[in-house]
Amino acid sequence: MAQLRGGIDLGGTKIQAIVADDEHRVIGQARRPTPVTGGPDDVIAALVQVQQEAAAAAGVETSALAGIGLGSPGDIEVEAGTIGNAGNLPNWHAPVPVAQLLGEKLGATVKIGNDVSVATHAEFELGAGKEFTSLLGVFWGTGVGGGLILHGEEWHGRGGAGEIGHMVVRRGGAQCPCGRLGCMEAYAGRKAMEIEARKRHDEGEHTDLFKLMEKHNRDRLTSGIWQRALDAEDKLALHLFDRAYEALGAGVASAVNLLDIEAVVLGGGLGVRFGDTAAQRLVEEMRPHLFNDERPPVVRVAALGDFGGALGAAMLVG
Amino acid sequence: MAQLRGGIDLGGTKIQAIVADDEHRVIGQARRPTPVTGGPDDVIAALVQVQQEAAAAAGVETSALAGIGLGSPGDIEVEAGTIGNAGNLPNWHAPVPVAQLLGEKLGATVKIGNDVSVATHAEFELGAGKEFTSLLGVFWGTGVGGGLILHGEEWHGRGGAGEIGHMVVRRGGAQCPCGRLGCMEAYAGRKAMEIEARKRHDEGEHTDLFKLMEKHNRDRLTSGIWQRALDAEDKLALHLFDRAYEALGAGVASAVNLLDIEAVVLGGGLGVRFGDTAAQRLVEEMRPHLFNDERPPVVRVAALGDFGGALGAAMLVG
Repeated sequence: MAQLRGGIDLGGTKIQAIVADDEHRVIGQARRPTPVTGGPDDVIAALVQVQQEAAAAAGVETSALAGIGLGSPGDIEVEAGTIGNAGNLPNWHAPVPVAQLLGEKLGATVKIGNDVSVATHAEFELGAGKEFTSLLGVFWGTGVGGGLILHGEEWHGRGGAGEIGHMVVRRGGAQCPCGRLGCMEAYAGRKAMEIEARKRHDEGEHTDLFKLMEKHNRDRLTSGIWQRALDAEDKLALHLFDRAYEALGAGVASAVNLLDIEAVVLGGGLGVRFGDTAAQRLVEEMRPHLFNDERPPVVRVAALGDFGGALGAAMLVG
Repeated sequence: MAQLRGGIDLGGTKIQAIVADDEHRVIGQARRPTPVTGGPDDVIAALVQVQQEAAAAAGVETSALAGIGLGSPGDIEVEAGTIGNAGNLPNWHAPVPVAQLLGEKLGATVKIGNDVSVATHAEFELGAGKEFTSLLGVFWGTGVGGGLILHGEEWHGRGGAGEIGHMVVRRGGAQCPCGRLGCMEAYAGRKAMEIEARKRHDEGEHTDLFKLMEKHNRDRLTSGIWQRALDAEDKLALHLFDRAYEALGAGVASAVNLLDIEAVVLGGGLGVRFGDTAAQRLVEEMRPHLFNDERPPVVRVAALGDFGGALGAAMLVG
């Protein structure tokens, strides 16, 4: 009988869970918004529920899974199975033993990895990065995360590598949700874009972004809401996306100038939603900043789409 | 008898040649300014002369050397022994077979490497980077070059990695000598700083920089001229150095956020000249941009000083 694995991608905006078979095929999946209020308990309860729903969709109990992998933001201690300091999750500061708590409730062994690392690994092994030995994964969503494959292996530095969202694209520039100034994420992260949109709306600038949000019963500007606003040529939405693409172009080009990797794989909630359009804009906005502009890296959209993070998480199960 | 090697560091400002023994000790050295007018022939004539002077200082003929290594800017083709597109050298565009031309004149085999790579390699093997397995070499001089050691090995990407000077620190910012906008080098490179100082001086801003240059019989603002101006608290010099340190801080912090390397080794003409002061300023200017600010990388001044590039070049000789 095939061995089944669970995989959960815990994002700042949504939680995606899957059950995958031996050949990394998704045979059950479920998705819910990430709680924005409360604290770690609420997030853990949501993780349990979404993984149970994905298992039900696959026709199994979670206790029958060979194991469950969780890709998470924040400071991950793999051995201890803890997550701390997750800035895009509600009130999550001190390390929480998520592997243990989740394992008890789901009746399976849980392994934790960094969300961006597992998603990059999945794209490298199974997706858009298969043919390369060096690549940069750019996960454009609530924040902007980066994953590196060099010589065919993940590069983590001292454990904190890949913070591409906090590369400086404008010294003294916009405030990032991390508190610093001029980070790429301050312009391109969904959360930062929402804060900027809200501020401009409150100052009287016209936009339908928040009307659309209410109409579609959302409590934040999801990628779907942005898409509707862009389709309707909402001026503020268009402006904030131009600004985001410019920042992504400068930041990713800086990373390419430093590392000269073969490929850039664009994923994340916004990256997957805007797909080829986003990849094309990224290529254009990188061009003026690339030192070796006669041979830019290949830019690809993450091939595993919304499931990449969860598939990579499931691959944590040995 | 000990095997002697020649090594030449071809910089945008000066040419440093050495003769080193089996244990990488410098037993003869010579230095001259890099020609700023003419073309490749003039630069090659200067290379020949400086290596001959270094050999004479070591009491040998260049034809008695086991080989000569040359660290150069521009596009290096190691196998072909050519150098092309060297923006900081006079009128150097098409590839020139420097290894062959130099070898004929010096009566020894010449190997060419990238100036920043060989200098980083020397610091990693013999200098400030010995105890680390990952580091970023920052060579602050005419331009700003970067060298990477990851897992104890040089990282070159597709051959063009390390262009840290062209990481963007201010999108839409100052024009870099490379033509692009907002590069770190546009603020921190000696050449860019001289262009900015000249422009402001021509616009009537007070500075003694050019008086000092003439008094000391220089044709450019060397690190020594900058030092004198800073010591005299020349306002424009102080301002342009603040600006340079701020740009270096943002750019190097961005590289650290991406790679999380253990150490930064600061070299180059300006890096070595301003040594500990520069390293301290770099630490301070990086801090506001470091994502993992509780554990910044170690920052060290290049321990091989002005000879690092030439020693690294000599190590190209097998």
